[in-house]
Amino acid sequence: MTSPAAAIFNAKTIAIVGATEKSHWPRNIFANLEKSGYSGKVFPVNPKRDEIFGVPCYPDLASLPEPADLALMIIPAPAVEGALRVGAENGLKAAVIYASGFGDGGREESIKRGAAFKEALGEINVPVCGPNCMGLVGVRENIYCYPHEHVSGLEPGPVALITQSGGTLSYYAKAGQERGIRFSYLISSGNELSLDLADYMNFVIDDPETKQICLFVEGIRKPDEFMKAAGRALEAGKPMIAIKTGRSQKSREAAQSHSGAVAGDYAAYEAVCERYGIINCETLEEMVEMTLTFQQGRLPKGPRIAFMTTSGGTVDLLHDYCEQEKTVVADLATETVEAIRPFVPADCHITNPIDTGAPVGVSGKSAPAEICKAFAADPGVDMVAWCNNMPGSARSAGALGEVKELVEFTEKPVISFARMPHQIPDGGLEFQEAANMPFIQGTRIGVRAMNALWFHAERAGRKTPTPPAPNGKKENCSGEALEAALEVKGLSSPKTARAANSDEAGKAASQVGFPAALKIISPEASHKTEVGGVALNITDETAANAAADSMAKKLHAIDANATIEGFLAQEMVSGVELLIGAREDDQYGPILIVGAGGVMVELVKDVALRLLPASEDDINNMLAELKVSSMLDGFRGSGPADKDALIASIKGLSEFFLDHRTWLSDIEINPLMVRPKGHGVCAVDIRTVKK
Amino acid sequence: MTSPAAAIFNAKTIAIVGATEKSHWPRNIFANLEKSGYSGKVFPVNPKRDEIFGVPCYPDLASLPEPADLALMIIPAPAVEGALRVGAENGLKAAVIYASGFGDGGREESIKRGAAFKEALGEINVPVCGPNCMGLVGVRENIYCYPHEHVSGLEPGPVALITQSGGTLSYYAKAGQERGIRFSYLISSGNELSLDLADYMNFVIDDPETKQICLFVEGIRKPDEFMKAAGRALEAGKPMIAIKTGRSQKSREAAQSHSGAVAGDYAAYEAVCERYGIINCETLEEMVEMTLTFQQGRLPKGPRIAFMTTSGGTVDLLHDYCEQEKTVVADLATETVEAIRPFVPADCHITNPIDTGAPVGVSGKSAPAEICKAFAADPGVDMVAWCNNMPGSARSAGALGEVKELVEFTEKPVISFARMPHQIPDGGLEFQEAANMPFIQGTRIGVRAMNALWFHAERAGRKTPTPPAPNGKKENCSGEALEAALEVKGLSSPKTARAANSDEAGKAASQVGFPAALKIISPEASHKTEVGGVALNITDETAANAAADSMAKKLHAIDANATIEGFLAQEMVSGVELLIGAREDDQYGPILIVGAGGVMVELVKDVALRLLPASEDDINNMLAELKVSSMLDGFRGSGPADKDALIASIKGLSEFFLDHRTWLSDIEINPLMVRPKGHGVCAVDIRTVKK
Repeated sequence: MTSPAAAIFNAKTIAIVGATEKSHWPRNIFANLEKSGYSGKVFPVNPKRDEIFGVPCYPDLASLPEPADLALMIIPAPAVEGALRVGAENGLKAAVIYASGFGDGGREESIKRGAAFKEALGEINVPVCGPNCMGLVGVRENIYCYPHEHVSGLEPGPVALITQSGGTLSYYAKAGQERGIRFSYLISSGNELSLDLADYMNFVIDDPETKQICLFVEGIRKPDEFMKAAGRALEAGKPMIAIKTGRSQKSREAAQSHSGAVAGDYAAYEAVCERYGIINCETLEEMVEMTLTFQQGRLPKGPRIAFMTTSGGTVDLLHDYCEQEKTVVADLATETVEAIRPFVPADCHITNPIDTGAPVGVSGKSAPAEICKAFAADPGVDMVAWCNNMPGSARSAGALGEVKELVEFTEKPVISFARMPHQIPDGGLEFQEAANMPFIQGTRIGVRAMNALWFHAERAGRKTPTPPAPNGKKENCSGEALEAALEVKGLSSPKTARAANSDEAGKAASQVGFPAALKIISPEASHKTEVGGVALNITDETAANAAADSMAKKLHAIDANATIEGFLAQEMVSGVELLIGAREDDQYGPILIVGAGGVMVELVKDVALRLLPASEDDINNMLAELKVSSMLDGFRGSGPADKDALIASIKGLSEFFLDHRTWLSDIEINPLMVRPKGHGVCAVDIRTVKK
Repeated sequence: MTSPAAAIFNAKTIAIVGATEKSHWPRNIFANLEKSGYSGKVFPVNPKRDEIFGVPCYPDLASLPEPADLALMIIPAPAVEGALRVGAENGLKAAVIYASGFGDGGREESIKRGAAFKEALGEINVPVCGPNCMGLVGVRENIYCYPHEHVSGLEPGPVALITQSGGTLSYYAKAGQERGIRFSYLISSGNELSLDLADYMNFVIDDPETKQICLFVEGIRKPDEFMKAAGRALEAGKPMIAIKTGRSQKSREAAQSHSGAVAGDYAAYEAVCERYGIINCETLEEMVEMTLTFQQGRLPKGPRIAFMTTSGGTVDLLHDYCEQEKTVVADLATETVEAIRPFVPADCHITNPIDTGAPVGVSGKSAPAEICKAFAADPGVDMVAWCNNMPGSARSAGALGEVKELVEFTEKPVISFARMPHQIPDGGLEFQEAANMPFIQGTRIGVRAMNALWFHAERAGRKTPTPPAPNGKKENCSGEALEAALEVKGLSSPKTARAANSDEAGKAASQVGFPAALKIISPEASHKTEVGGVALNITDETAANAAADSMAKKLHAIDANATIEGFLAQEMVSGVELLIGAREDDQYGPILIVGAGGVMVELVKDVALRLLPASEDDINNMLAELKVSSMLDGFRGSGPADKDALIASIKGLSEFFLDHRTWLSDIEINPLMVRPKGHGVCAVDIRTVKK
């Protein structure tokens, strides 16, 4: 497939519409194209000028000496559509529209113009970047259409950046370069009325030189297309390293107002990240470190990290960070310990993370590099992390030859992390480049970046599933048919029996088995507990009859005319209370939810989400994420719960929901009681929302 | 008071014991003292040499031409005690001991030597830094006793660093200098067998030039002294900015092995931070940013921040970070909005955080600086944050004159934060210094640093309370006397009544009131629920009698010889389940705990801790930290709970524990039922641990 975004970067002729010296945007872009060595032709367009920037200037896109492939529209919003139509009639293949006022900002005029322009774009049939963007860069093509002077003359590399925040492009490009990150494309996507996130993603996925994709996302306008593109990136082994705003309600609202983006539900977005291996960064600085880490081009075969340090303080911090970040700290083989021994003082405790103190010099060899080699040779180690600064900063170890030898000695990722960030010293980037060893700035981020390597590696190349077509029956969506259909899927409801009057309550209770619960059935007792209409832990028939009798009297004492329709006996179910559910997310489609059940749950939000369909691995991982899971293994002396039945029931609920999502938008079981091992689960309360 | 650490930094003569060219430690220290311009005399000591480093060398501390005030012992552990004794006999006033092997490392030899040396130090009576440290620096005194070359010739400033991790000194000094942080003292404290954390803290608290104190803490050996020193620092208005390892079990163990430090319970340490205003950093890089922020020397009068940005993406991130970090985003006054209007485009939505887009130039004025001034003039704004890079990096706004004018215009903190970190450009530090505006590296850390300013400001100058002497009675610590004593403190237990047999059960139940719970009393029914020995929600006497009867039958069916001693009727108590408790922490003394109650609680760990005595403000803040608190305001349709009674009961429990801590080490009430407003609280289960 060819993404429509390709038309932009294939441009052999570029028109700058709105060329004027008064504004630094057209001026800088013209200069950036020139100084970066763009090999095509650049035509300034401005009806008031015959010449500008030292070259001829043309009145409009119809008057150019040859058609413009790409038009950069640096003109006010109201003038854009007309200019674009003229271009389209004259062979224009793509455009970048910088002006805001196309649906953004929340003013009516802007919203109307945005809607009208979107419709017009359908006719005009020219792919557009923007409006309300800050342009883009194709590094290998020397296409520099971004208005800041320093975004020019970049060295090409494997990293594509696609950002909905135009200003961030400039800062990320600068910060990345300062650290040795090299880019293939830098794209600010603006309001995405034509080309959107997915189009750009597909374009860079198809680019053989692009190896990883950085994203700054405010909202995802076409979630299906986004997920398809993300699936392609994953299959192609191109990690997506993203930051997405919208964790808070306020930022969702703000995004809406300044770019009109749909910001969506953050928890569902996290499920998307989980499925498609998108590395969800907390900060832009974290994104830089992650990007640099991936630029080494190595992926681990597992999560186990070995850490080389010369400092007890760093080891303490590593322990804390590894626990926080759920990092797997490798166990060292005996051979590894022996291989390390010559390089450490006699009293050094050889463990992981290791604190060598002052490593022992062995002629012609860097002790830390040799220790890292020993780590790398250990089959129980998947990644090697070396606490080390760039040469020339505070202190560092290892001559270039030794470090190169280490990195070439193994195919495993070998990463340096500084105890704390430092300024890049002279020659630092060259060393990093020559050694092909990323120098990460900080201890915690070092741990997080290596976790991210495995997070991606575990998923890379994977074909992601899509939900199957529904295959259910409408009548299964309510009442007894629903209960029956869920029972088939491993989700039985508690046994119940109805008694017509208090004398039959004992019999009904004995049908469901003791201990039983008993509830009064009366239109006057909608809040059963408040009128004394619930009895729990009833142990025999006599007690049941007495309880029913007492409930009836109580109710009649409150309301002498209350109608008592009977009593409901219900099996008392005990076990670990979970919540399981499935729903159709507006943006990302069917989603599975598993969490702690009961009342406290809404407060503590101990839940895990996954896109459906979910594999058994997914379900196991969800359970592993939950705090409540520790109760499944036995809690306060109780035995283990029936985890197998739980997993089967979650699979069953997922299948049921996928099959019936034509009619249901939401199904939730809370509590699902997970009984002791061998005794299954019980769906105590089932709630559905119909479409 | 004069801290014994002062003896080190008053030294007019320094001996380097173990002076040899073969080791870079003595060599570098000699060179560092020389090149930094130490004005006293330096005597190398080495019995094998007459001359070294181009100066005369002496065989021992007894042979010096004049007594050494300070001896740097860079000799193996077994030789240290002898050398120190010789020094003490010859006028030595202080020493730094670098060697490890004094209790650290976990080997028996080391542990024995450490214990013996500690005893010897009692006789020798010379204050010692270390052992197992990397030395220290007095910047104004030009005393450079740290073995890395770059730790020399520093510019003096207001920041003292005290670190238990010797290596961290070097990195922190470098990283700090690179960012414009200036130090007064840099001290690595090692095993602290003589001088400890508190001694160094007291020394720098008494130093008028030191305005803030950075700490890297692995373990606190003398918690009382530490807390006293922290209280002094707080009263003196000197913020403590600290990182402490030991969040994870593994790092606590590791600290024990490499420095023998007591790492303690992290949650209790956090309560110490809360009390003494210690800023608890997550990473070393965060500590740098915090330190730089405080170096401006300004404190806010409140928590409200106004943010100036030119970017929608940054605004979105700020919303997310402010929510995460519980930052108070200032509401702008109408006057402020009007004052800003001339400096922003017509369609700019003037709000906080503001995204100005491209600010409007007004001749001779920086629009962002003017907007920041408008913020500063707003009485509803306590701090001004400007998203801005240092001049010379990517993009930045504001000439020095304009920025200086802004900073001088107000006494409120005015901080720049970069959208993301950047390398320090040429002239950047000079600009920062001249403008007296810290340039913080990153958006989230900008938010966190300003929160930290208020965290300290809120507590600065405060006299911290200490626990009063116990004033209770031993007999109040158990049984009915305990219940009675707690009742006086606002903590009543549920009503209970005992029935001798099943016929009397109804009467007992009616004494406690309906609905009631009934429990069988029998030595054969220790697990009451399992033998059907508990009935809940009993609504009248008949039902109670029937329930008792049925329990008895059930038990006899299981065990025909079971003795039934009677039945216990208990008031059914409903409400919000909390846990409240107090305990004596091994390190930090009496501590108050409030959290969500019930079973789930142990999993979700929704708890808040404070040192005792706790004020009503403290208790209110604890409740505000808890997720479960939202239930106190009404949850799922229930009305508000009796928060006044809750607060009174927490105060009551605190007082009771403080009075009875002679005999009790722990008291916990779980659940404490907080009933609807006006109905008080009920201590359902009270558990004590005796000393």
